[in-house]
Amino acid sequence: MDKITGYINSRKEQYVEELKDFLRIPSISTLADHKTDMRKAADFVAAKLKEAGIQNVKKIETKGHPLVYGDWLHAKNKPTVLIYGHYDVQPVDPLHLWDSPPFEPVIKDNKIYARGATDDKGQMYVHIKSVEAFFKTVGKLPVNVKFLIEGEEEIGSHSLEEFVNKNVDTLKCDAVLISDTSLFGPGVPTLTYGLRGLSYLQIEVTGPNKDLHSGTFGGAVDNPINVLAEIISKLKSKDGKITIPGFYDDVIKLTKKERDNFKALPFSAKQFAGSIGVRQLKGEKGYTTYEHTWARPSLDCNGILGGFTGDGAKTVLPSRAMAKVSMRLVPDQNPKKIARLFKNYIKNIAPKTVNVEVKDLHGAYPIVSPLDAKATISASEALSKVFGKKTVFMREGGSIPIVVVFSRKLKAPVVMMGIGLNSENLHSPNEHFNLTHFHLGILSSAHFFDIYSK
Amino acid sequence: MDKITGYINSRKEQYVEELKDFLRIPSISTLADHKTDMRKAADFVAAKLKEAGIQNVKKIETKGHPLVYGDWLHAKNKPTVLIYGHYDVQPVDPLHLWDSPPFEPVIKDNKIYARGATDDKGQMYVHIKSVEAFFKTVGKLPVNVKFLIEGEEEIGSHSLEEFVNKNVDTLKCDAVLISDTSLFGPGVPTLTYGLRGLSYLQIEVTGPNKDLHSGTFGGAVDNPINVLAEIISKLKSKDGKITIPGFYDDVIKLTKKERDNFKALPFSAKQFAGSIGVRQLKGEKGYTTYEHTWARPSLDCNGILGGFTGDGAKTVLPSRAMAKVSMRLVPDQNPKKIARLFKNYIKNIAPKTVNVEVKDLHGAYPIVSPLDAKATISASEALSKVFGKKTVFMREGGSIPIVVVFSRKLKAPVVMMGIGLNSENLHSPNEHFNLTHFHLGILSSAHFFDIYSK
Repeated sequence: MDKITGYINSRKEQYVEELKDFLRIPSISTLADHKTDMRKAADFVAAKLKEAGIQNVKKIETKGHPLVYGDWLHAKNKPTVLIYGHYDVQPVDPLHLWDSPPFEPVIKDNKIYARGATDDKGQMYVHIKSVEAFFKTVGKLPVNVKFLIEGEEEIGSHSLEEFVNKNVDTLKCDAVLISDTSLFGPGVPTLTYGLRGLSYLQIEVTGPNKDLHSGTFGGAVDNPINVLAEIISKLKSKDGKITIPGFYDDVIKLTKKERDNFKALPFSAKQFAGSIGVRQLKGEKGYTTYEHTWARPSLDCNGILGGFTGDGAKTVLPSRAMAKVSMRLVPDQNPKKIARLFKNYIKNIAPKTVNVEVKDLHGAYPIVSPLDAKATISASEALSKVFGKKTVFMREGGSIPIVVVFSRKLKAPVVMMGIGLNSENLHSPNEHFNLTHFHLGILSSAHFFDIYSK
Repeated sequence: MDKITGYINSRKEQYVEELKDFLRIPSISTLADHKTDMRKAADFVAAKLKEAGIQNVKKIETKGHPLVYGDWLHAKNKPTVLIYGHYDVQPVDPLHLWDSPPFEPVIKDNKIYARGATDDKGQMYVHIKSVEAFFKTVGKLPVNVKFLIEGEEEIGSHSLEEFVNKNVDTLKCDAVLISDTSLFGPGVPTLTYGLRGLSYLQIEVTGPNKDLHSGTFGGAVDNPINVLAEIISKLKSKDGKITIPGFYDDVIKLTKKERDNFKALPFSAKQFAGSIGVRQLKGEKGYTTYEHTWARPSLDCNGILGGFTGDGAKTVLPSRAMAKVSMRLVPDQNPKKIARLFKNYIKNIAPKTVNVEVKDLHGAYPIVSPLDAKATISASEALSKVFGKKTVFMREGGSIPIVVVFSRKLKAPVVMMGIGLNSENLHSPNEHFNLTHFHLGILSSAHFFDIYSK
């Protein structure tokens, strides 16, 4: 390993120059104008994989942007790692808030500023460089690898999902390795082992068949907004518990070890509240903030609309009101079952004075990767070694739909070895990526392959 | 009177054409874009008053939209009638629910469809035409009249209120005549002797200082929409009672006679519910539907808005949510006191996790007018004569704030000779006005002047 780390350490500047080239390609997947750029970015990835020593590199056409695949499968009796990442980036608007042009990478204060720097070009690139270091020094890898890099992560990963479903054998592996999440903090080695799922519904309440005058009819007719408010108020208790019958039935309780792990992490409620401008946090009774956002289900109204919402006073008793309500789920909650329970509950509590319809808009399964999987333990050791600190295990509150697809279809543990930071403005102006983390990421990737192979 | 009624009867179609011209002016008082239209509508009224034979016609500038005044004061020793109406109309949204454009009047089935048809352009116009009929036939009026037509009824009548307060002598009169209410039913002559008051407020809930990702933060932060729903759900009990402490303290109980009168009026809950497309009515326990809408206070959300309200699913935990809430009041509730009680209550029930602001947008006193005033009896006789039926005395659920100002400042009985129908979609898409009532209204106005002068 000394040879390999020595090789990586001596090429710091070169890696940054290569990353700059990658970041110069404005591969915005959601904008049709950038279709050519998307192909350029895919070609860049394919070329770099080939240069690194990866075999069978190919661009796979889809209905959307191409996938890039490549593998090296000559480590007999050694595990196979599927490495996932994405070469597409978010749009850049509002452009005027950027301090430097989003596709002209600039280094300031040991950070590289550009769209895609941390999400996900910089993070994904570390694995190409670590693989290359093996080939250029010892001529082979200690494990088998399959690279699968997509161009539609920011727009829903639909082509990739279809590809995975149809190519389970091709993608067969012992672990999936992804760097597209965040470190717990700067310099803190971190593995994310859980993601929440999602059940997203829309409630529509219809009362009278037209908007009525609230003077003429007010007092004799149920009001869809009042009814909707009443329904929403019945979704959670004072203690922040979700009151839908059966909602918690499949929730796997947090283990003492997990709770202890979370409690050991530094946390200031004051600082957290201050960072989002609230006086006081509010969460389910009996749990900590990390547990609230990472490991317990939650329910939020995402939108509500009804009646007159312009300036001033219009005395209308509206015909309709609508709310979007979503629930973040944790293992083993099933988004389809939760949507069904939600619908049944709403049907039960809705008064007969109105019509209530509930539509299921979107769902995603939650995931928790086993902490005792060999790949996870290896990744944890690799990170600790490289960062010089004990690896932190955290979960994340959001959903990454494709992670669930990998986990469920390939039945392999997913190692989320994120080396970004939540503060690096992903999806916002002035996105950047810490170059120390970039370098430590390449080393961690290399050590992971080494440790995992033993 | 035969000459006069003959004149009116021969001009049916011309009156409708004139009304169409009036309805073509999109005089929406609450929208700043329509300022020019407001002046056009005021000019239209002024021109029609002059053409009718009214003297001293002038537009009176205000901080808002102009008032139109005109008089004819040459009926010596005869009573003076102040005729009030408004040329402003409600907004038209949701526009897609209109069968024909709101400002392109269309006649279907003897009804004229346009915004403002029944509220209040069509109703107000009958008095201009009845006055004109006197001048064009007998060259004079049997009573003295003062017209006072405003352009801010739908936004609170603030300028008119100020004007009345400062010009009590100019407006001195023996009775106020207003057509801006409803008949009990088609062809049923009706006088309205009571109106509910209004207290209209806006609740604004602010949580985090920006929209947050519901995955990253959901479960740890109070959600402004959920909080707002909770607040709204605490405004009424299951029995339909308003739960604001002190809310009912000043409510005068209905007399047995009034309750008996109301009970004597025909009513079918099934028909009423069917007419507005609901399966079941809902009102305060212990009262009838007429009592709910005419003589008991009520509370309705008029609008609500927060978060993402477009198509599909956006996983946002919104920064803000807003609701408009109004209460209909009955004597002797005071809108200022009610607004204060409302604000205090909201302040008490709002959680510390969010900021809640309550703005007082609008208020109006409730009123009940004496049934034994000479003007009221004359109006009742005129209506019975023209409609060929006994006049019904009812109260109405809406508010006409300025009626209270007239009643309190000018100390004159207010005759509410409404000729609209509650089913005519006032404040809703497809507002319309029955042209038979339009015609009978002109005749009733003329007979009222005649009978009242004797």
